[in-house]
This record gives sequence, structure tokens and C-alpha cells, in this order.
Amino acid sequence: MNFGICGYGNLGRSVEKTILNSGENLVGIFTRRKGIESKYKTPIYAFEDAPNFAKDIDVMFMCGGSQEDLLWQSPKMLEYFNIIDTFDTHAKAKLHRDNLQKQALKSGKVAIFSCGWDPGLFSLARILFACVFNEKPQTFWGKGVSQGHSEALRNICGVEDAVQFTIPNKTLLKKAKNNSSCDIEENLKHERHCYIVLNGTRSFEDVKRDILNTENYFKGQKVFVNQVGKEELERLKKQTSHRGVVLAGDLKAKAEFSVKMKNNTDFTSQIMFAYAKIAFKLKAGAYSVLDIPAAWLLEEENLLKFL
Amino acid sequence: MNFGICGYGNLGRSVEKTILNSGENLVGIFTRRKGIESKYKTPIYAFEDAPNFAKDIDVMFMCGGSQEDLLWQSPKMLEYFNIIDTFDTHAKAKLHRDNLQKQALKSGKVAIFSCGWDPGLFSLARILFACVFNEKPQTFWGKGVSQGHSEALRNICGVEDAVQFTIPNKTLLKKAKNNSSCDIEENLKHERHCYIVLNGTRSFEDVKRDILNTENYFKGQKVFVNQVGKEELERLKKQTSHRGVVLAGDLKAKAEFSVKMKNNTDFTSQIMFAYAKIAFKLKAGAYSVLDIPAAWLLEEENLLKFL
Repeated sequence: MNFGICGYGNLGRSVEKTILNSGENLVGIFTRRKGIESKYKTPIYAFEDAPNFAKDIDVMFMCGGSQEDLLWQSPKMLEYFNIIDTFDTHAKAKLHRDNLQKQALKSGKVAIFSCGWDPGLFSLARILFACVFNEKPQTFWGKGVSQGHSEALRNICGVEDAVQFTIPNKTLLKKAKNNSSCDIEENLKHERHCYIVLNGTRSFEDVKRDILNTENYFKGQKVFVNQVGKEELERLKKQTSHRGVVLAGDLKAKAEFSVKMKNNTDFTSQIMFAYAKIAFKLKAGAYSVLDIPAAWLLEEENLLKFL
Repeated sequence: MNFGICGYGNLGRSVEKTILNSGENLVGIFTRRKGIESKYKTPIYAFEDAPNFAKDIDVMFMCGGSQEDLLWQSPKMLEYFNIIDTFDTHAKAKLHRDNLQKQALKSGKVAIFSCGWDPGLFSLARILFACVFNEKPQTFWGKGVSQGHSEALRNICGVEDAVQFTIPNKTLLKKAKNNSSCDIEENLKHERHCYIVLNGTRSFEDVKRDILNTENYFKGQKVFVNQVGKEELERLKKQTSHRGVVLAGDLKAKAEFSVKMKNNTDFTSQIMFAYAKIAFKLKAGAYSVLDIPAAWLLEEENLLKFL
């Protein structure tokens, strides 16, 4: 199969490695950044040049951020390609899905959206648990860097670079493990530790106020903002590990789905790759992992051995 | 919705409770046993009378055992009803699926097969893990009573009643948790502790030899056979708890899906119920949980909140 990558940050680099390791063909990387090179010698093209490759790429991996990129880049690329993305702004999931669905039907292409470990595998666990236990499951993340929240920080005026660690509240996590239907305040489940490098255009206090008011990401949550130097930030960014768990049930019966990884974007790219490979089995439209039967991920002859 | 139950053992009783608690309508229980009553006053009918209710029942819960009942009862009932079963003999899954598929197309009905926690939810986890990690996941069960293996014991000539506890090998479980792709001999992963009451027609040694030779259930595995009295067996049967885990990955990234329950058949019935409710959304055919998108378990408007 022939793949393309749109966006060359952490996720783009992980997807590049995953595709190259798989033996499938990586046609090129499309980015809006200038003067970037791939250490694997993958051809780099300008974002605008992508339409020229419409006939050469089976699936385009959309590796931009949810907050600023995917809402417009995914539908844009869907004009020419089947696409897969990791869109993770829950509050805008319906908007994104509807946009993709419209464009997919127009161009006769397939969009697989919100495909990673969360949203993605964890979404599946939440649905299954919600239906079996007849209650809302609990999700806890971390300790680990949230790509989405780090991007949200970087998009704030005055921030040169940033990283955000999500840390679960151990007491509430333990409480939820015993009984997921007990009363747990969503905003208290995690601490959000922000490390920012300022670019000198605004004061720390102004930037901090903007962070604490960012809807869907920080507003109303337990947030700690720390100003650090560039070197300190580079050191913090090397901590790529992450983990998470979806819980449901009580003493009578409980279920738990957990993941743990050394490198968040590497793991995310493995999940994207598993789904990207089967895009050709889907008819034109927008799909989350919830819409795709697990059976389609495998060849018929391998299926029953996993039943 | 209107439901029926075919088979009135432990699972049938759990399904009865689940349906009654849900507020949906339970039309009746169909059984080959004589002189049985429901403590909830559910009408009890003979197995042969089921076809008379073809127009009154939306989905029939097939609650017999895999070894002796479901292979013929599920296709039989599928002539008249949509059915759901928990068929769990992996070696005969293809045979069962093909039979159901043929009958479903003939009668224009829906069959959901192998629907419980394993096979069922665990099958989903195994497929997802296999595709994401590109390796075979490891499943461990217990400590707990295996319904399927207990049935296999009861079907052996000379056995009046029996129960089988599956106990995971702790060393291998720990090994698999660290690295699921390491070499783990399938037959050594569990101990199978059998407790049998003899009916006096055959010697313990003869019965034991038959147990150890039962294909798909005990042959080649680490099996302990204990002869006990009726009272001791009744006491053992009260231990209805069970648990299990599906593991994949290594130090780089790992995933784990686990369940734990006080009552195995109660939990299984909750899973069956979640899928039985959506049988009307499927077109005629045979489906495992692998063939059903998770999205179909919920109403469209509730879906995105779990994404």
C-alpha cells in the first residue's frame, strides 16, 4: 500500500517509522514547515503540493494537532485522499465528524477519525462497558504528556514552547477501581502540570490567565503552570511515556482496560496503522473506531482463532 | 421487547433475572427438563413447544451448554427466532458459525453467537491487540469455575455431577504481563481442578482416564481429578466467581483487558442482554461480537459522548 503523512511533529515522525518498519510504501511527508529533513530520507513536500499526489497515495495519515490543524486539514485532504486522524477534542467531535462525512460523500473517499488509544481503543472500551454495566465508565490518564493539551498551550499567545503532564488523582483512581459508579467529580480526577517557555511578548501572569481559561482543555480543572527555560523544557519533552485506564463496575463485577507505553506517539501510530490498512474495505464516509467491526481488521481466515 | 429463554441451568436463571430487572418482557422459558418451576413465576414450556411462540418472541436466549446443546439447539431455534448464544468450543466455532449462517439466511433471522466475556468481550480485545501489537495476545482465566469444562465433565459416562476450577499459573501470568510475546506453552498456562460425583456405573479410574482424554477441554493440559461427595460438590458449586485477563505487548507498550466477577453467569447474561437488544438492527445472518460495530450498541445521540 502507498501512504502519505501530513504534518511532521512527534506523531508524524512516529508514523513515518511505523510505515517504514511495516514494509509498506511511504510516498512522502507533507508539511507547512520549511527546511525540514527526514533522517530516513523520506521525500518532504509542501502541504499545498499534496493534491498532485492524489493518485499515488492510498491513505494520508493526518498528524497535525486537534486544536489548530485537523478541523480544517482533515476535510481538506479528504478532497483528494482517504485519510486517518487522531482528532481528540471531544467537544468538537460531532462538528468534525459531520464535516468529514459531508466531504467524504462528495469526494467518494474514506475518513477514519479519532483513531488512537484515546479516543480510539478507549472509546471502544467505554461503549462496551457502558452497555454491559449500564453506567458511565471512568477514564483516568497518566502520568504522561498529553499531546493535545501541550498543543493547546503552544497555541496560546506568548508561549514559545510547552509541554503538559497529566497526573491522575490516586485517591479518586482507587475509589473508581472499587466502584466506578460512585460519585467522582470529572474536574478533580486529574492534575494538569504545564511547563511553558515564554517568547517575551507577554507576561507570565497574562499567559497563565489565558491557560486557565482555555475551554475544553484547562478551564475548571486542577492546573499548575510553571515557567521554565528552553533547556529544561527539552529535558521534560524527552518524557514520552504515558498510560491510561478505563474502569467500570463494582464489587459484583468489574472490567478494566489499560494501556501503558514508553512512547505515546509511537503507540498511537501503531493503532492508526492497523486501521489505515483496512480503509479500502470501507465505503465512502466518515468512521470512528466505533463504527468499524473488529472483524474487518483481520483476514477472514485468521478471525476465528481469536474468537 | 419480548424475550425467551431456552435452557434453564445457571445461565438460564441469570438471564431470567437480567431480563426481569430490565423491565423488558420475558415470554417464557423453554426446557427439556420436567417438573421445573421459576421462583419468579415465569411460564415454563417444553422445548418442543417453542415454535408455537414464533410470533411472540423477538430474541431467544440460548442457555444450553456448548458441548451437547448449542450445536443443534441454536440452529434449531433459529428456524423460528432470532437467537443469541455463548458457544465457547473454539475448535468448533467455524462449524457452528457456518450452520447458523446457513439457517439464518433460510429463515431470515439473526443469530448472535459466542457472546459472553470469553468468547465475546475478550475476543474483541484479542483482535484489537493482535492488530495493534502485531503478535498473538495471551489470555489467562481464573481462578474460577469454567461452565464449559464443568459441562464437559458432566457429559462423561459415570459422572453424576461435576464442577471444574480453572487456576492460572502465576509464574507464567507474571511472565506474560512483562512480555506477552515471550514463549509460553499454551497447555501449561492453567491448572484444571475437577471435582466429580460418580453415579456408581463406572470406576473412578475409568472416568478419570476419559476426562484426561477429552479433546478441546482437558487433553494435554495440567488436570487434577478429585472424587467428592454430593454435599461437598454442592458447596464447591456455590463458588460462582471468576476472572480473566487478555494481555499484549512488552516494555515498550502494553495493553491489558481484565474482568472479575462474583457470579460468572450473571455477568455473562448482562453481556448477552446488551447484544440481544440490538438484534433488530442486524440483517439476517450469523454474527459474533467481532462482526458488530460497537456503535450499534448505543443510540446515535449517546455515541459521541463515549468517543
